[in-house]
Order: sequence, then C-alpha cells, then structure tokens
Amino acid sequence: MDIEGFRRAGYAAVDAVCDYYTNLSKKTVRAQVLPGYLIDQLPREAPKTDEDFALVQSDFESLILPGITNWQHGKFMAYFPGISTFESMIADLYATSVSNPGFNWVCSPACTELEQVMMDWMAKLFGLGKMFHIESGKGGGVILNSASEAVLTAAVAARETALRYLATTEPGSTLSGDGFDIPDDIRAKYSSKLVMYGSTHTHSLGQKAALIFGLTFRAVPVSTADKYALRGDALQEVIDQDIKDGLIPFFVIATVGTTSTGTVDRIDEIGAVLAEYNTISLHIDAAWAGVALALEDQRGYLRLADINRYATSFCTNMHKWGLVALDCTLFFVRNRKVLNLALDATPAYLRYKEAETGAVIDYRNWQLALGRRFRSIKVWFVMRSYGVKGFQDHLRVGIDHCQQLSKLIIASPSFELVTAPSLALLTFRLGGAAIPADTLPAERNLLNTLLNVRLNARYDVFLTQTLLPSTDEEDVFCIRVALGGRRTTMRDVEEVWAVVVEEGEEVLREWTKTSGAAWA
Amino acid sequence: MDIEGFRRAGYAAVDAVCDYYTNLSKKTVRAQVLPGYLIDQLPREAPKTDEDFALVQSDFESLILPGITNWQHGKFMAYFPGISTFESMIADLYATSVSNPGFNWVCSPACTELEQVMMDWMAKLFGLGKMFHIESGKGGGVILNSASEAVLTAAVAARETALRYLATTEPGSTLSGDGFDIPDDIRAKYSSKLVMYGSTHTHSLGQKAALIFGLTFRAVPVSTADKYALRGDALQEVIDQDIKDGLIPFFVIATVGTTSTGTVDRIDEIGAVLAEYNTISLHIDAAWAGVALALEDQRGYLRLADINRYATSFCTNMHKWGLVALDCTLFFVRNRKVLNLALDATPAYLRYKEAETGAVIDYRNWQLALGRRFRSIKVWFVMRSYGVKGFQDHLRVGIDHCQQLSKLIIASPSFELVTAPSLALLTFRLGGAAIPADTLPAERNLLNTLLNVRLNARYDVFLTQTLLPSTDEEDVFCIRVALGGRRTTMRDVEEVWAVVVEEGEEVLREWTKTSGAAWA
Repeated sequence: MDIEGFRRAGYAAVDAVCDYYTNLSKKTVRAQVLPGYLIDQLPREAPKTDEDFALVQSDFESLILPGITNWQHGKFMAYFPGISTFESMIADLYATSVSNPGFNWVCSPACTELEQVMMDWMAKLFGLGKMFHIESGKGGGVILNSASEAVLTAAVAARETALRYLATTEPGSTLSGDGFDIPDDIRAKYSSKLVMYGSTHTHSLGQKAALIFGLTFRAVPVSTADKYALRGDALQEVIDQDIKDGLIPFFVIATVGTTSTGTVDRIDEIGAVLAEYNTISLHIDAAWAGVALALEDQRGYLRLADINRYATSFCTNMHKWGLVALDCTLFFVRNRKVLNLALDATPAYLRYKEAETGAVIDYRNWQLALGRRFRSIKVWFVMRSYGVKGFQDHLRVGIDHCQQLSKLIIASPSFELVTAPSLALLTFRLGGAAIPADTLPAERNLLNTLLNVRLNARYDVFLTQTLLPSTDEEDVFCIRVALGGRRTTMRDVEEVWAVVVEEGEEVLREWTKTSGAAWA
Repeated sequence: MDIEGFRRAGYAAVDAVCDYYTNLSKKTVRAQVLPGYLIDQLPREAPKTDEDFALVQSDFESLILPGITNWQHGKFMAYFPGISTFESMIADLYATSVSNPGFNWVCSPACTELEQVMMDWMAKLFGLGKMFHIESGKGGGVILNSASEAVLTAAVAARETALRYLATTEPGSTLSGDGFDIPDDIRAKYSSKLVMYGSTHTHSLGQKAALIFGLTFRAVPVSTADKYALRGDALQEVIDQDIKDGLIPFFVIATVGTTSTGTVDRIDEIGAVLAEYNTISLHIDAAWAGVALALEDQRGYLRLADINRYATSFCTNMHKWGLVALDCTLFFVRNRKVLNLALDATPAYLRYKEAETGAVIDYRNWQLALGRRFRSIKVWFVMRSYGVKGFQDHLRVGIDHCQQLSKLIIASPSFELVTAPSLALLTFRLGGAAIPADTLPAERNLLNTLLNVRLNARYDVFLTQTLLPSTDEEDVFCIRVALGGRRTTMRDVEEVWAVVVEEGEEVLREWTKTSGAAWA
C-alpha cells in the first residue's frame, strides 16, 4: 500500500469507525454468535497473492463486527468499563505510524520523555506524594500493559528488597548498601520460603502471580461485617503463623476497589502491621478505582493518605474507567532503584552514550519485557482534550448513575442491595420483601444463579455475577453492575434495570409456582 | 470529541501520517535532540480545562516528531527492523475502536477466533508441524506482547512440566496423569534448584527471565569456529555438572537468529541431548529470524525439521521483520494443556457458559496477564494485503541487500566481515589489508570502538555495535548491520556504506598518524 492508498484506506477506516459509533446504540451489547462462528467463515490458509484492501476493510464490518461484544455500548455494565475514546484512537494511530519499541531513550527520545512527563501529570492529578514523581529523582511511574504485569513487576522488586535485606542481615554477612549482587546461597536458602498475601477478594491476578513465580499466595479471609475489606489483624495473624513456620512474608497486595464489590482494603491497618517488618513490600492494586483519586472528595474514601504513607507501589488502569484505550496501566513506585536492581540485564548491543552517563531513563529496566509500545501519547491526547475538569466530570457521571440505580434497587420490592455503591459499582440480588426471611442462603444463591442465567441469555444487556466469600456469613452469589461507561446515560441505566426486574419477576414467579421448597 | 469531530481529527491524523512518510527520506534517521529536550517544553501538570484538539495534533508534529528515531527510515539499520506498515496502522485503528480486553471468548468472540485462525495461518506459512496448530487440538498459538513475554510464559510452562514429572516420580508418590495440583512440598523441595540454559549469545531476555524468576541462567560458551552456535556437547557438559551438583535442568532457550550475528543454534544436537531428560523443555527464540521460515529455501538453514522434531515452544515477532506494527509476538506451543495447568486461575466473576463447557479457548490462560489487545487483526490485514507472495518478496529483498553489502565489504581494503550474512544481518569491522596482521585483538577492538563512536555521533545513519564472546578467540567488538526495513533500497545500503567507509578511513588516518602503537 502506497501513501495515497493509505490516505484513501485511512479515510475509509475513519468513516467506518464513525458509522460504528453512529449505529452503536441500535446494536445489542453482546455478540449474537455461537462458538466457531468466525472460524467457519475464514479460509484455512493465508491467501497466496495480495487481495484488494477495500475488500479486507469491508470484511471487518461483515465478519468481525457481528462477533464483537460492544464494550462502548451504553448498556455494557459487565466486568469493568473498558473505555476507548476517539482521542486515544487517534493517539494510537500516530504512535503506530512512528512505531518504535521504546526499550531505551535512544530508541526514540520523545517516547521515553513524554512518558516521564505524563506519569508525573497523573501522579499529581491523583495526589500521589512527591516520592512517586519522576521529578523527585527517587521514585516515579511507568506505563505497563496490565495490572497483572504491574503485580508481577512489583513482586519481582519486592523479592529483591527482601533478599537484599536477608543478605545483609545474615549472620556473618559483610554485605551492605546496594552495590552487591544477591549471593546464590541466599537465593537458594530463602527464595522458596517467600509468601505473598492478599484477601479472598483480591483479584485473581494475585493468585496468578503466585502461580507464575511458583510461590505461595495466602488469601486472607474477610468478613461481611467489614464489607469484605482486608483488616490489619487478620493479616497479622496469617503473617505470624507463617513466620512461626519459618516462611518469609515479602509481598502484600492491598486493593483499592475490589473487583467483586469495589471495597477499599484497610490500608491504614495493613500499613501499620507491615511497618514492623523489613522484608515486606506493599503493592496497591487500584486497577479500576484508582483513577477516581482525581476527585478530591473521594480521596478520603480511597485512603490516599495511607497510600502515600505506606505503599511501596501503586497501580491503576487508564484503560478501564480512565478514558484511555487498552493498554495503559499506570504503575508508580516509591523507589525506582529497586526496580533497576531487580530488572537490569544490559548486553553490549543495548549500550549507548546517554544511558552510560546516567542522563536518561531506560524504561526497559522498569518492566519485565524489553520492547514496549508508545502509550504515553494516549494519555497526553486524552488529558489535554478533556482537561482535568472534563476527566473529573466524566467520573462523577458514573458515580451519580450508581447512586441513582441504588435508589431504584432499594425502592424495589423484589431486590436488595448486597453491597452499596462503591464509586460506580454496586452488587444486588433478588431479595427484600419478595423472599421469605427464613429462606436458606443456598436457596437465595440458587435463585440468583437462575436470574443470572436468564440475564446471560439476553443480548441487550450485559452484567456479570460474582460470589462473595466471607467469614461471618454464607458466601453470597450476586449480580454486579459496573457503571461509568462513557456512553452510558441514566436512561440506559433505567432500561437495563427494567430488564433485570422483568427477568427477576419471572424467576420469582417460577419459584412461587413450584412452591419454593423444591428448589432447595 | 463527538463523532463528526473524530471524522475531522481522524482525517487530519491520516494526512499527518501521509506527510510524515512523504518527507521521511529527507529526515535524519536519528533524532537530533539532547536528553530533556521534551521534558523542558511541556507543562508540569495536566491542563485544568479542555484544549482544542487541532492544537494537540499540531503539537505532535512540532514537539514529538523531532524526538522520534525514525525506525521506518530507509537508512535505519540498528538493532533489528521494527516495521510498521500502513495496513497495520489501519488494523490498529479498527481494533482500538472496538476496544476490548480479550481475556476470554465472551469478551468478544471475534477477537479470540480471529487469533486462532491467524495463528494457524502463520503456523502453516512457517511450516510448523501439525501439533503446533490450534486445529490439532493439542498445541497451537497465541499472540503475546514480546519475545520476552514468550520466554517467561514458556519458562512457567516448563517449570510446570518439570515439577509434575518430579511429583509423579518422587519415591512413594501416588500421583499420575494431569489431574493433580503440584504438592507444596515438591515445590519447596525443587523450585530453587531449577536451572535455565542458553548460550553466551542468547538474547538478554534469557538472563532477564532468570532474574524475574529468581533462578539461575547458565550461558553456555560458544566458539568462533562454530560461528557462535550453541552445540550439543557444550550444553551436555554443563547439564551433567549441574545434575552432579544436585540441580534440576528444566528449560533451554535455543536461538534461531541470534541478536549479535544471526547465528542458528544446533537444534539437532541440542534436541538429541534433551531427549534423554524428562524435565527439560526446549524453547526456540526466533524473535527476528523466525518469519523467514515463510521462505522454503531458508528452512534447512533455519533448522525447521529440528524445530518440529524437538521444540516444546517456538516464538517469532511479526513486529520486527514481519510487516506488522508493534506489538505482535507469535508464540506456539506443542502442548497447550501445560499452559492451562500452569496459568489458569479462574475466579467466579470470570466464569461463563461457553468456557465451562469447553467449547471455546480463553486466551488469558495462555499468557501471564489477564487483559490483551485485539492484535490478530493486524496479522489478518497484512497477510491479506500482501499475500504470501508479497510477504516472501519483502523478506527476499532484505536478504539480497545483505548479500550485496557483504560483497562491498569483502571488496573493501579497510574492512572485513566478522560474520557472513545470516539472512539480512551481518557484522563487520575495520580490518583487512589496512591493518597489519600482528595488530593485537585489543587494539582491533579499540579501533572499532572508535569507529562506532564516530558513527554514533552522526544522525544520518544508525547502526549498532556488539561484542562476540567466544571460547577460542578473544572477544570481538564489531558493527552490526540489520537490513530488511521495508523502505530500505540498495541505494540506501550503498549510501550508508559510504558513510562507514568515510568514518573508517578517518579512524585509520588518525591511527596511522599517531603511529599505531600509542593506541595499544
């Protein structure tokens, strides 16, 4: 394709995207396709010779779009919002046009430097303390692919911190400062004893990080009375036992805005517990909720002061509620030296003058991989086009919708809130006056599972379910509503709620008809 | 930004990209900026209110473009090519417009299914055996971010394989088959004894993977006589010693096309060695060279038959020489069940009908992270627009340029090849008749370091250097030329070579003037 061919195809692609958004509200939220729908329509091998690009573009519309779940639809309320804005699409086009793998400064100075500045913009917007700013010379931020990658990176740094401490305090050790490699015998002696912690409500990325490192992950139990927040005393108890068993606690994931209910862990208590140990780093996973730190009136609820006081690292995704298209995970650390100690492997072919003299940052030493996309331009375009005020207004709309939905649920005779709104997320279930008070927990869960099955059989709404493990009550099965999509209006919320009521009433009718007991 | 605003801004962005490519050959390859150039020009905080998007777009051109290293420039011959094509830019725009995190099938069926089909297209194009095809039901491919992520993923699977074998063969064990979790005591007993292997020419991703997992990486030495290829006997020797020392070899990285010289490791010998062990997986890192398997006449050289016979996993980057913009790493495994055993952590909120019944693939269980971009569309657009023939023709151009450059070097009185062309990569240095035969290796390296410094002080060419560790000669410092860029013409090659000759002659003049000995 030559330059003029690109101009034509590019205009056509822009027009196609305009058509998609023009027609979006008339589409269903979920794709109405069965497994294999696309596989069955595509050839088994690449074409021998070139095809006309206009045909390729029209195939996107005829073959791909029918199999797309419309995450930008106003009635998408599953998982978390995964917002893509026009600004990020354009930013991505520019970024891809000057494609470069960004592993070091000389790869493209603009790529590294824009990222540095954007990370400081966002640190300041979120109220993160100076030590998390690149400007501070101590810590700073980097853009990663995902909150999962952030946890893996934080865990590698945490292991480095723990093993360095153990190496220097080992009886007879003469090691001190940062200028040493961790001795093999220290690694061999302690590595397999390292333990990670989170709660039973920590995102599965915690469990998965432990799988990846081959370490143990302790899911500390939480209670309904505490609104499923991880408490300091529960954590202390598990840590005490592990230390008694000769293990080495090294990494705690505290969540600001859990996936199931949006709970904020008690970072005040957790931080106070961890302050007693030299080997434990605290990572804050605020993948979804972190962007709401841009709202000053939410900073108390989100425990910003505790984050600034105690967190070793902090992560939030712009690609969820934050108006920047996937992928854009902001990862901030208090001490960037630890990242470099843990991740720097520099062969001869990656050396160059500005890095050797320490004049620049090489972001490859802040992440697991070498190559990386030019993602900061998405943040730059979005933040300038919205401005801080526009960004805040967008967040407030989702929070307001959630409050209003919560009133509808409370007013409903057949439903009840399971957890009240946390920012733009709430959970509910069939309940309230429609269900006798003596109905067993298992039967309540079964009823709501049936509701979930009915909702999932529809294509015009998309909600997801969750199960809430608890120490003081039976685990509750409930439905999540994740608001905050940029195209969601209050009318969308009301229409989705009407669908839920319709399906819920049908479940209750069936249940009453079969006399209830048969379900148990 | 509303839909019509996006149409205007989108057209303008397409035009800006056209302008960039129209003017590209007139630009320098390297950015002519000093550290901090951009940081100094940007505000320290995000703007309070929204800015005009046309201004934002023009800032891309005035602020960002001057700090871009032009990887698409015809004279970019550093690192490896990092090709971005118009087809991939358009594909990326479509992908971002329907942004979805693709972690499971229901996220967007099109995203998962197109990826399955594309991975089979590419497996077939490369001649990978049936077991590497999704269609086989046994193995198959997935698109990852980077070759580094592929190695990490392969290593996690390899550890799973090794520990499962050790768990079933432990004295007194009653475990068998796949239906068990690896017992904690097996993990604790063996995890820290696991050892990874590569050669001294393996990419730094091997060393870095070991850092990340906290394991040992053995860089097996190679010789100049063997053209720096990892041999079976050298690997056997190191493995034997490790086993004698009570360690557990579990993972070997063999490279098809090393970064320094493009060497192909002796996979025939390595595979034969590893066939004797039950705990060792073989990963093939063909990050750069793998796409050349599309050329049937290169398959012998690239050891395709050995890959098909012995490899546990195989990786190549479409985003280097393969015409697809970053990021697009193709990762193929022989046994996908191992990936799922190693990486599946499924909480309640990720469950849905089609996955529970096994009707679909959830790619989150094939990778480290949860979320993922819709990258297969880039492969689809590129392969259809080029066709297999266009893809092959593109590869042949780079190989041909490298052959022609090699003749220029051989014919030159002041330079010599260090390693002959491997596909589109060669290395050279000042040498030949211009340098007395008795010049010490250290002095030769110093001369070439001076040449490298001179080349790096120029902005109109971009080459990178490397150092070649060897068992039978002093380590050689030399300059790499990585050809294959889509815009590189033979005239570019000749002009770059003229610059090298000019700078080389200058180095030799200075050297002769100061009588040579003073440099030693």
